[in-house]
Amino acid sequence: MRDLSVKTDSKIVLLVIDGLGGLPMNPSGQTELEAAGTPNLDALAALSDLGLSRPVAAGVSPGSGPGHLALFGYAPLRYVVGRGVLSALGVGFELGEDDLAARINFATRDENGRISDRRAGRISNEEAAPLVDLLNENIDLDGVETFVTHEKEHRAVAVFRGAGLSGALSDTDPQRTGLEPLQVRPTEDSPEAEKSAALANAFVEQAEEILEDRYPANTVLLRGFGMYPALPSFEEVYELDAAAIASYPMYKGLARLAGMELLQEGEGIAGVFQTLKDSWDAHDFFFLHIKPSDAAGEDGDFERKSGVIEEVDAQIPGVLDLAPGALAITGDHATPAKLESHSWHGVPFMLHSPYTLPTAESFGERSCAGGTLGVFAAEEIMGLLMGHALKLNRYGA
Amino acid sequence: MRDLSVKTDSKIVLLVIDGLGGLPMNPSGQTELEAAGTPNLDALAALSDLGLSRPVAAGVSPGSGPGHLALFGYAPLRYVVGRGVLSALGVGFELGEDDLAARINFATRDENGRISDRRAGRISNEEAAPLVDLLNENIDLDGVETFVTHEKEHRAVAVFRGAGLSGALSDTDPQRTGLEPLQVRPTEDSPEAEKSAALANAFVEQAEEILEDRYPANTVLLRGFGMYPALPSFEEVYELDAAAIASYPMYKGLARLAGMELLQEGEGIAGVFQTLKDSWDAHDFFFLHIKPSDAAGEDGDFERKSGVIEEVDAQIPGVLDLAPGALAITGDHATPAKLESHSWHGVPFMLHSPYTLPTAESFGERSCAGGTLGVFAAEEIMGLLMGHALKLNRYGA
Repeated sequence: MRDLSVKTDSKIVLLVIDGLGGLPMNPSGQTELEAAGTPNLDALAALSDLGLSRPVAAGVSPGSGPGHLALFGYAPLRYVVGRGVLSALGVGFELGEDDLAARINFATRDENGRISDRRAGRISNEEAAPLVDLLNENIDLDGVETFVTHEKEHRAVAVFRGAGLSGALSDTDPQRTGLEPLQVRPTEDSPEAEKSAALANAFVEQAEEILEDRYPANTVLLRGFGMYPALPSFEEVYELDAAAIASYPMYKGLARLAGMELLQEGEGIAGVFQTLKDSWDAHDFFFLHIKPSDAAGEDGDFERKSGVIEEVDAQIPGVLDLAPGALAITGDHATPAKLESHSWHGVPFMLHSPYTLPTAESFGERSCAGGTLGVFAAEEIMGLLMGHALKLNRYGA
Repeated sequence: MRDLSVKTDSKIVLLVIDGLGGLPMNPSGQTELEAAGTPNLDALAALSDLGLSRPVAAGVSPGSGPGHLALFGYAPLRYVVGRGVLSALGVGFELGEDDLAARINFATRDENGRISDRRAGRISNEEAAPLVDLLNENIDLDGVETFVTHEKEHRAVAVFRGAGLSGALSDTDPQRTGLEPLQVRPTEDSPEAEKSAALANAFVEQAEEILEDRYPANTVLLRGFGMYPALPSFEEVYELDAAAIASYPMYKGLARLAGMELLQEGEGIAGVFQTLKDSWDAHDFFFLHIKPSDAAGEDGDFERKSGVIEEVDAQIPGVLDLAPGALAITGDHATPAKLESHSWHGVPFMLHSPYTLPTAESFGERSCAGGTLGVFAAEEIMGLLMGHALKLNRYGA
């Protein structure tokens, strides 16, 4: 892709309606997208290539990290981003290239040194926040800066900043109660991993001293170690000056991993599209992220999810007025209200450009299933967008 | 595949209508194939498996080389054939196994030694031909034979023949004017690459002496070095005695890479099919190549492309009279008249045998999109043909 990409004047828009894919509540019913009143999306589908995209692998429900990495063209089984890194991105921590991140659970250790509660009684945000402050003020590790950021309830994130660190480390979480916490061990044979394991163990030791009187949150478990991943940027791979319009820290962080510039978005869904208009001349690729559809699906609220989709539908004419060279509308995964969670189902996908072969008059899971793109891997979407925007040279003579 | 293939009496025909895939000129219209009057192809589609084949990768428009390698079952991203080799095949040069090929551009070098025109003013065929003769007569390299063949205007091909050569070489083309040409350097650490780089640099040095007074064509740029690729032959992989009926040098050359015998074809499209009939008893696999459909697409001539397809349609009953065990009809890539070039779009594919599951009454991009084969990689076509011709043993007990 890197060898074929060329810079042109045409612009690409990737509109991600988070958790777009859905299911009927009853087998004979419609999905959230099918049930939504979407005159603009339907009219656009009749001018677009359609297909169902698969984020990761058959039957596998992706998290937001792998789901978006696939949309950005990074094979999600190859570009593995540690959970610690995703948590740091999720809390809006500005990770740097030398940073090692890990997830923290506040936990309870009994008088025998064994873990009696891996979540410290799921302490509240109000109880956890001062503990995070205590750690930040008192942890003192040799040669690295340490940052602890609260996530939610018993969960927080630790970031170690310094030269020569490695994420090749095992977790301390013994995975069940009644066992002693584990030492962090290097999982590869390198001085960086040795050094990082020692730092992580020192962190736990100091944290236990600091939290000694804070029962039930008298210890921390560390897991999901990972370095800031060095992903090839959109500029390098596609020669695109890419920008992201997203309101949640996780998606901003993922976009930043791909080298996208973060644009300040306005209020709500309309604000996302207003920012697109305002920034149109400044970039040649735009990633737009719409979150409330996923949240509605997670809540099992079929109607609300359809409503979010309708709200997006109303913005489509404004996008078309900008005349993008290629416009893709899809999700990062399905979040069927019926399942109240992310799922493995195919995600409706449409791509509009002057060079399409339309097959249906509506945008929905089942109209997409009959499209000319078939069922395809989400990591192919960037190639399709680049091709349709006429930004790829021919391969071979 | 090699382990499963068995020799049987059944015969396979792979009919390639070059650039078959197309697009509607207007979003609501039909493609070239859909618009063509094709009663015979439509009737055959109603007895065939249908699908859309993808030549290389999502969004990527293939050249003829990768497009045909995929059809012949060679993964086009794995079996990379150098551009020099493709050019040599294209001019009908009979490449041998020890041959190293490169593309030549006649170019202009100014008094400071910098390239002032990478194409020597796009000199005409009439101007270039005697320069090619001069090089052929006067180049004298130690231990190799050198052949220069004219391609078109400022373009030619160099072939170095001798033992112990390598194509792991960098180009001399600095890619823009105002720079000095580059030295050829080995891109791998091997004596073959060292030796070949020295030969290529000596070639340029001698060429500059020979062309000294031939301004604007006073130097040559070399690029796209590659050795004759050692592809496993159809005989080895499929136990097929394969023959090619093609009129253009490029396709003859690609067929020869796969070990196919080249058959002399008669005049025009009818001639291709007459040759098939005449040679039917002598081989068990036939690759038929129809070129004018691609040329019409490249010219942006929708009607003419449909006309070529209609001409092929008229020949289908004659092919069916021969009763092939398996017959595939497809293209090597799409060449939509709308784009006036090769494109990345899915290519209509039909496979007729006694063992099919038909899904439509017509042959077109959109009827193929709904077929039982779905959207699939072109490199899978040979497996499908072998299976349908009952030439593959079961895999595993």
